[in-house]
Amino acid sequence: MTDCDVVVVGAGLAGLAAARRLTATGLRVTVLEARDRVAGRNLGGHLADGVPVEMGGQWIGRPQTEVLKLVDELGLETFPTYDRGDGVTLYRGKVTRYSDETFGLSDDAAVEVGRLQQELEALAEPVSLSSPWASPDAADVDRRTLDEWLRANTDDAEALAFWNAVVPALFSAQPAEMSLLHFLFYIKSGGMIDSLVATTGGAQELRVVGGTHQISERIAAELGDGIVRLGSPVHTIVHDDDHVEVVFDGGSSTAARVVVAVPPTLAGRLRYRPALPGSRDGLTQQIPMGSVIKIQVAYPTPFWRDAGLNGFAFNLDDELGVTLDNSPVDGRCGVLVGFFEGAHARTAAAWTPDERRARAVASLVTLYGPAAADPIDYVEHDWMAEEFTRGCYGGRLGAGVWTQYGSALSEPIGRLHWAGAETSDVWNGYMDGAVRSGYRAAAEVLAATP
Amino acid sequence: MTDCDVVVVGAGLAGLAAARRLTATGLRVTVLEARDRVAGRNLGGHLADGVPVEMGGQWIGRPQTEVLKLVDELGLETFPTYDRGDGVTLYRGKVTRYSDETFGLSDDAAVEVGRLQQELEALAEPVSLSSPWASPDAADVDRRTLDEWLRANTDDAEALAFWNAVVPALFSAQPAEMSLLHFLFYIKSGGMIDSLVATTGGAQELRVVGGTHQISERIAAELGDGIVRLGSPVHTIVHDDDHVEVVFDGGSSTAARVVVAVPPTLAGRLRYRPALPGSRDGLTQQIPMGSVIKIQVAYPTPFWRDAGLNGFAFNLDDELGVTLDNSPVDGRCGVLVGFFEGAHARTAAAWTPDERRARAVASLVTLYGPAAADPIDYVEHDWMAEEFTRGCYGGRLGAGVWTQYGSALSEPIGRLHWAGAETSDVWNGYMDGAVRSGYRAAAEVLAATP
Repeated sequence: MTDCDVVVVGAGLAGLAAARRLTATGLRVTVLEARDRVAGRNLGGHLADGVPVEMGGQWIGRPQTEVLKLVDELGLETFPTYDRGDGVTLYRGKVTRYSDETFGLSDDAAVEVGRLQQELEALAEPVSLSSPWASPDAADVDRRTLDEWLRANTDDAEALAFWNAVVPALFSAQPAEMSLLHFLFYIKSGGMIDSLVATTGGAQELRVVGGTHQISERIAAELGDGIVRLGSPVHTIVHDDDHVEVVFDGGSSTAARVVVAVPPTLAGRLRYRPALPGSRDGLTQQIPMGSVIKIQVAYPTPFWRDAGLNGFAFNLDDELGVTLDNSPVDGRCGVLVGFFEGAHARTAAAWTPDERRARAVASLVTLYGPAAADPIDYVEHDWMAEEFTRGCYGGRLGAGVWTQYGSALSEPIGRLHWAGAETSDVWNGYMDGAVRSGYRAAAEVLAATP
Repeated sequence: MTDCDVVVVGAGLAGLAAARRLTATGLRVTVLEARDRVAGRNLGGHLADGVPVEMGGQWIGRPQTEVLKLVDELGLETFPTYDRGDGVTLYRGKVTRYSDETFGLSDDAAVEVGRLQQELEALAEPVSLSSPWASPDAADVDRRTLDEWLRANTDDAEALAFWNAVVPALFSAQPAEMSLLHFLFYIKSGGMIDSLVATTGGAQELRVVGGTHQISERIAAELGDGIVRLGSPVHTIVHDDDHVEVVFDGGSSTAARVVVAVPPTLAGRLRYRPALPGSRDGLTQQIPMGSVIKIQVAYPTPFWRDAGLNGFAFNLDDELGVTLDNSPVDGRCGVLVGFFEGAHARTAAAWTPDERRARAVASLVTLYGPAAADPIDYVEHDWMAEEFTRGCYGGRLGAGVWTQYGSALSEPIGRLHWAGAETSDVWNGYMDGAVRSGYRAAAEVLAATP
């Protein structure tokens, strides 16, 4: 006799998507969440005057069909990210405005960036999403970092600067910190580079009215009382041929199976009795989380719109790498969302919040002129400091990891199943991937349930 | 009022060396050890007939002065590793015997290996051991993997094969799995490459009669009853301005300070209240342990000695990378010690013990002839599977980690101090480094103790 059929560890999108699928079949589920809130890497916040802003993952692209379906089923609404007008790029002190697909690069650099993109996508084409380690020439592609490949394939400083800004914008990590194979897997997983980078037509096209954290909140509400236990950090999972016992601060739950739906590096911190095989432990030692501090800078109006700007900026010069228009749907104020990502996040984490604000505002003045000098509010969130996330956007695999350890990423071990955005073959690292991973884990559990 | 002055987490060499220094000044120390034994990555074992063999770290070099002093103070004795006669190298199916410093390589390859060694050591010379991240051109050296550097600097397949065998022999990891900066730091830390690789004159010169695990056992005995608590896995460290509380299975200890003397990846699995800064957590997400399965193959006599061989073999062809003569000091039988290291260890971990034995014996027959076909015993230890080590020989830093996170490796956080072979600037990764790190942490504690 167990307390329930399935324990889910982690009430982020992956865990809750799994729980929703499982309860729909009549199974009894308990979701254990370390924090006093659900939604994991989605996080609602607000400006001082109450305007809601999102401090975690917020955008959804139209090809992200599983999370969109869920948004719809839960009665939430989306609206398009503001995307009218020109973007700007800052490089070597010069702000260039553009309305085409050049990102404001010089002609030569734009051509070179395009050539590199084509070559990378050609390399990505044959990568296996379900088994990256079995892709053609996998060992050779995996032993190289993306940084090595970029340096070996271009001498164009401006094109390199662009890639060295785009990659952290996607991964919150530097090109040297992931294998070429990981990069190729990831871009293919999300429909290639334009699909990842674009606002309209890409992964940043839509926002959820009121915030994406409501997806998790609504699932939790739908699951009903007593299913999701907040403030219950799991520390130990005992497992044998018959059942699992999941031990958390203040109690334990027994079940037939457990779905561990936290980032791999956090899954590796739990104690398992018996201990897991070296192949699984070695994997979780090697999927570090990305580094990001997300900021929201508010102004009385979205003044950049009046100048015909869409609020999208690529900054190749300083730490505030990317900016987008993140104003509320009702337009009652203007908000620019910005990111310190990868190496910049590690630098910025050593600054005080006041320093970060001052530097961010200085960058915005460079990008958008003196009107950016006097924000009415500034809020930020350092995901590296969050004990139960320890970095965003997600985990990455460095040189050699996919080919030597990758098969342990989502393969169940006895009664233990693994979910989370990092374990998805489609839209890996995104909300959509998280949802898919939850469904996949739920399907595994159902297939194994008599 | 606290239970003691200092809690040490981990009764390996680092923790015990720290405890010994601290108790010598009159401080009250408690050492909490997860296992039911001391000595961490040193581990005594024996053949079926009782002959002692070491399943963990076993060799000591003469320049490793701190661990040698400790061996002497504890009344242990050393004896020289058997090193008379020729070595052999297996490459592309051919066994070459050599008595010089060529490792049996072709003339061209030997010259190329030497040239690369000189270049690497010239690059290592300016590296700062105390602050690798502040070395000249650190960011540029750190973004490259050792593998990239090797491929960029030679086209000689045989020389590359040699380096691709030497590096796992030193790190239990592949050249792609560490940054060039980490490699340079590490070789300088141990007195450069010859010092690391050599038996006589190098890090493999001496053995401890009865085994190195006795160093830890004698320190524990010297500390006296009740100081070292075995079977006490620490899971949580509560810390504030006044004291620390170290919580383990079955109890907790309060103290003024704590020395955490476990590998960084395991230190990162503990829970800290309050949680540690992102810079420290990000570091411990990124120091994966090496991969090794150590084997001992016993024969009635050390028959290779009769053929004028010293028992040292470099195997560039298959998984059993390195072999040495590991016969007991009294010569009552012959023992070859071998290693599956790095990528080979990950492959071999998927085999059954019988398969590993069969493959190892087949390799030894290739290297030493038909006399190797019938061992009287075979024992092995998979360090990746050890829950409270999770890999040997030690942790390594991949591309970008030293320069972005390295300063958090040994820097105390409030009342938390860090020890372990990975935190030493001299003989990093070796027993000597472990001892030095314990002394350094003890000195920090003493300096901070009123």
